[in-house]
Amino acid sequence: MQLHAMWEEYPALQTDLTEVLNTIEKNIQIRDKNVETTIKNLIHAGGKLLRPAYALLCAQLGPDYDREKAIAVASALEVLHMATLIHDDVVDESELRRGQPTIHSQYGNHYAVYTGDYLFCISFKILSAYSDSASNIEFSSKNIEKILMGELDQMRMRYNIHTTVRDYLSRISGKTAQLFALSCYSGATASNAPRTLVSRAWNIGHYLGMAFQIIDDVLDYTSTDTGLGKPVLNDVKQGVYSLPLIYALQGHKKEFAPLLDKKEAMSDADLHELTALIERYQGVQKAFALADKYTKKALREINRLPDGDYKTDLKSITSKILTRTI
Amino acid sequence: MQLHAMWEEYPALQTDLTEVLNTIEKNIQIRDKNVETTIKNLIHAGGKLLRPAYALLCAQLGPDYDREKAIAVASALEVLHMATLIHDDVVDESELRRGQPTIHSQYGNHYAVYTGDYLFCISFKILSAYSDSASNIEFSSKNIEKILMGELDQMRMRYNIHTTVRDYLSRISGKTAQLFALSCYSGATASNAPRTLVSRAWNIGHYLGMAFQIIDDVLDYTSTDTGLGKPVLNDVKQGVYSLPLIYALQGHKKEFAPLLDKKEAMSDADLHELTALIERYQGVQKAFALADKYTKKALREINRLPDGDYKTDLKSITSKILTRTI
Repeated sequence: MQLHAMWEEYPALQTDLTEVLNTIEKNIQIRDKNVETTIKNLIHAGGKLLRPAYALLCAQLGPDYDREKAIAVASALEVLHMATLIHDDVVDESELRRGQPTIHSQYGNHYAVYTGDYLFCISFKILSAYSDSASNIEFSSKNIEKILMGELDQMRMRYNIHTTVRDYLSRISGKTAQLFALSCYSGATASNAPRTLVSRAWNIGHYLGMAFQIIDDVLDYTSTDTGLGKPVLNDVKQGVYSLPLIYALQGHKKEFAPLLDKKEAMSDADLHELTALIERYQGVQKAFALADKYTKKALREINRLPDGDYKTDLKSITSKILTRTI
Repeated sequence: MQLHAMWEEYPALQTDLTEVLNTIEKNIQIRDKNVETTIKNLIHAGGKLLRPAYALLCAQLGPDYDREKAIAVASALEVLHMATLIHDDVVDESELRRGQPTIHSQYGNHYAVYTGDYLFCISFKILSAYSDSASNIEFSSKNIEKILMGELDQMRMRYNIHTTVRDYLSRISGKTAQLFALSCYSGATASNAPRTLVSRAWNIGHYLGMAFQIIDDVLDYTSTDTGLGKPVLNDVKQGVYSLPLIYALQGHKKEFAPLLDKKEAMSDADLHELTALIERYQGVQKAFALADKYTKKALREINRLPDGDYKTDLKSITSKILTRTI
């Protein structure tokens, strides 16, 4: 059981997150022990557990903090996240996830599809065991709809040179910010927080999710594969045009078109030229500026919350994850 | 809008099933209109709608028949069924479903995986909008878990010559009977039927689901592809050993082993020899006998229900679908 090192500074949260991992593990029982072990390895492979962490912190917003319930909600959210990751890996044909071979690469699409479905159900199961009313669940199924729509939109817009900033923001609002917003929201409602705080929690999650995804997308252009010393560029290789490229494309489509038209056939030299063009038109810089705007919005909303240790932690964690450079 | 011809004899049910299709259609809204159209075509391609039909009939078991609620529950069940079909098609790499190109063959795995996920969520959404308590949903998520476990078991046992009748029954109990049982159960609970009737409804669904799947599996050996005039044998070609083969294997593994060891490489001649062996050892006959046992159990439980038009329909439909030969 290995929690990400970032939680060492937050011992209470560290204890609760360990309990989240235990809860998830307890709920996962598959007759095929190989698959069960693979899922459990994935759980313990040191994902950051950001979504459950935010849920746990926001569960201290209302008058009725209930640790057991907060942990259940946090666990359901992480399982949901895992389900979408496993299905994303099928779709992207990724070989590795958190440094481990993905389920689809080890056991084939069969297992990966059903295992993802299974985790979806486990998530609903954990959630429903602790929710007082069906409305909670209805709300979250609407959310998941939006998450999937974000993913479908991403597929639909692949290789589309006319993707706008607005398209992009709508897509990441679905595929990433929605689950962060749901995490903060669910934590807040689990503790019966008043409506204004619940909606503030939602906004915090939304803003930080937006910032988080933009930074993730920027890092795809700026961070380098260990050993290779060149940008990862996974997205653009798969035809997913993210914010740095979209910004750079504005007013310069003609310059990019010959490169992008090559699609899967882009060579290393082409990719090098592409990143140079993005740099020339300040794509990364502009994207970072927008991420910064969202980070500031998230922190501003956090500042408006009632004082408490949880608030100090929220601020500290949010600042930390939104200034990461790797 | 084309309902399966079998419902012409049941005008009230026919009207309600048409409403089920409308409800489903109303709930499916995907920005990508091609995918939306594909799903809608699938809805209208004339699936038998057996699960919603049983839910609708069992919704007349309790004192509080509520047509709108019954239709919602029935719709959720059909959407759930569709979600599993779409994911099954990804896993089986099937090209056609209900005579239409499958989503994965038309748009790729990407769309098929997310579309299935999307339908899972829509199913929960429709269900939760009409359920009074979260327990209803918890119950159904446990069910879906079992359905998926059945599918995973089927994968796990592929090409396993030691598959027992018990393995087989446990697998189809998950992958098929569970959803039929859930359909009858959900209909009954939607009308607040007393507990004994709810559990009888569950049993009816379970027994008829078992019979239904056994017959389906027998037909894979006995029915012939239009035009080709030879058995379909989809299952055994994919390493899925179903009841007729399992029965025939009992005490004769050595005779089958050289054939089955060829796995994907079985030729038409091998398949011909295989069906001859199954016939010699009365695999089909024994499987039919077991299906008949389950059908009788289902009908016996139906006979114990309070009298009413719905009961007459239940009997008639059950007899009809469990004596089909194509």
